[in-house]
Amino acid sequence: MATLIAPINHLPHEDAEALRKAFEGWGTDEKTVITILGHRNSNQIQQIRRAYEEIYQEDLIKRLESELKGDFEKAVYRWILEPAERDAVLANVALKSGKNYNVIVEISTVLSPEELFNVRRAYIKRYKHSLEEDVAAHTSGPLRQLLVGLVTAYRHVGDEINAKLAQTEAEILHEAVKEKKGSHEEAIRILTTRSKTQLIATFNRYREAHGTSITKLLDEKSDDFQKALYTTIRTFNDHVKYYEKVVRDSIKKLGTDEDALTRVIVSRAQHDLKVISDVYYKRNSVLLEHVVAKETSGDYKKFLLTLLGKED
Amino acid sequence: MATLIAPINHLPHEDAEALRKAFEGWGTDEKTVITILGHRNSNQIQQIRRAYEEIYQEDLIKRLESELKGDFEKAVYRWILEPAERDAVLANVALKSGKNYNVIVEISTVLSPEELFNVRRAYIKRYKHSLEEDVAAHTSGPLRQLLVGLVTAYRHVGDEINAKLAQTEAEILHEAVKEKKGSHEEAIRILTTRSKTQLIATFNRYREAHGTSITKLLDEKSDDFQKALYTTIRTFNDHVKYYEKVVRDSIKKLGTDEDALTRVIVSRAQHDLKVISDVYYKRNSVLLEHVVAKETSGDYKKFLLTLLGKED
Repeated sequence: MATLIAPINHLPHEDAEALRKAFEGWGTDEKTVITILGHRNSNQIQQIRRAYEEIYQEDLIKRLESELKGDFEKAVYRWILEPAERDAVLANVALKSGKNYNVIVEISTVLSPEELFNVRRAYIKRYKHSLEEDVAAHTSGPLRQLLVGLVTAYRHVGDEINAKLAQTEAEILHEAVKEKKGSHEEAIRILTTRSKTQLIATFNRYREAHGTSITKLLDEKSDDFQKALYTTIRTFNDHVKYYEKVVRDSIKKLGTDEDALTRVIVSRAQHDLKVISDVYYKRNSVLLEHVVAKETSGDYKKFLLTLLGKED
Repeated sequence: MATLIAPINHLPHEDAEALRKAFEGWGTDEKTVITILGHRNSNQIQQIRRAYEEIYQEDLIKRLESELKGDFEKAVYRWILEPAERDAVLANVALKSGKNYNVIVEISTVLSPEELFNVRRAYIKRYKHSLEEDVAAHTSGPLRQLLVGLVTAYRHVGDEINAKLAQTEAEILHEAVKEKKGSHEEAIRILTTRSKTQLIATFNRYREAHGTSITKLLDEKSDDFQKALYTTIRTFNDHVKYYEKVVRDSIKKLGTDEDALTRVIVSRAQHDLKVISDVYYKRNSVLLEHVVAKETSGDYKKFLLTLLGKED
């Protein structure tokens, strides 16, 4: 369930004109920007982008970049891109800004195979490099094998489960994870090629056979490869729980991790942020919107709360 | 340049009716089958398949399978599939029938990135497995890394060349190929992620620096990995020359390799078989159609010659 509150009908040209008016004069009318863009789904926003370009011969995104600033600008920018463009940008930033390989894993495992392919297309269009090219250039060894395998996968989508395969491959994963040795070649093959349904059957089979979840054996605080392996299994198993943890960690830190918080909110507002928020409440006994209101400020705060469906 | 001779206008329903008539009565009228299907391009054939299904509620492919036999049936079957379907079948057969990894390399390197992606889509639709899943299950070690990387690539298409990168990566390839040691990890990264234009620049740079083509250092008769590496570089460099060699080898053998001969003819008849055939003549001083006529027989021969644009 989404948290985004968007009208069924909207008038893209009127929205474009209202935004233009908000940019004119002394300073920007941020309230209008939030009211409009925080209440439109991604299709509607693309219509507004086109209408704005048509009327004013100006790129709405560029204009917003010059009007807004800081975390608010970043959040608006990420929000109004098409989903595939946004993920391409998030992946590129993650690669350039160091080692947030979790973002690469999220994109590869949470999206559908077609959506993931659209991200690769958007990435090439934007950067004139392929996504796997940049991932490979930033990594090496088993981490590279895993991440390149994840981003380039085009998995079968279906309900078929091969129970025997699940059993065999649960044991292969067990050996690879338990012994923490070798190149993990087979574990990587399994995680980067099997369908999501089959993988979940394998993880369940693992739990039955070993009485514990496979991620329990992985040390997420260890090296980048182990961390990526851990995230891969978690996001396949239950990406809602995973995102709840990302949000929790982003707030728990001394100084909020705005990038992570923004990423989860803009990526999931139109999909399952309500469910993530419910899981958050269950685990932390505090409403996500209260924490966000407490830890952020200004227009950034107002914008996030709007996407969370909770305006002041 | 193609060798296929197809009319600009054709009437799919009339073709379907003529084929039906060819199937009826005692035995099949193979001549009609060849005259029609050997003179239609792949779009036209798909229209005929639809028209046939519409009129007779019967799958044309299934009917042909029951009417024809041997190498002729195989060739017609491969020819009338959509190109992406055909390549999916060729890849699957290559994997199942043992070790013809060259077919996997061809598909991955000769097709455009969008065409390759369509093959992956067709593969999943047909086999309920992903192409990379099956490639990975049949291979291991560096061969797996190379082949999985090739089939899953979605490369940037463009004219940009980074000359400095070409120089660095020519040396990386040199080390990997010359020393024949290590996992070839970097050579695989280069070959599976760089754009075709960039790779050709790298191979040219190699030739300038070392006075010889990089493939000269590779032993195509050595292990499967070296062979696949060799084919990858050859097909990127000049797939026409490569196909000429495949055709030459298919005929040179004691007992023609019909599968290889059919594969090249049905895959390239609509594209560049004329060029391949010219290169063949230049190298062997004999016309390809004469050799095909000499080495094959019956309806199979007639069909191949029709696709070569040379009927009796």
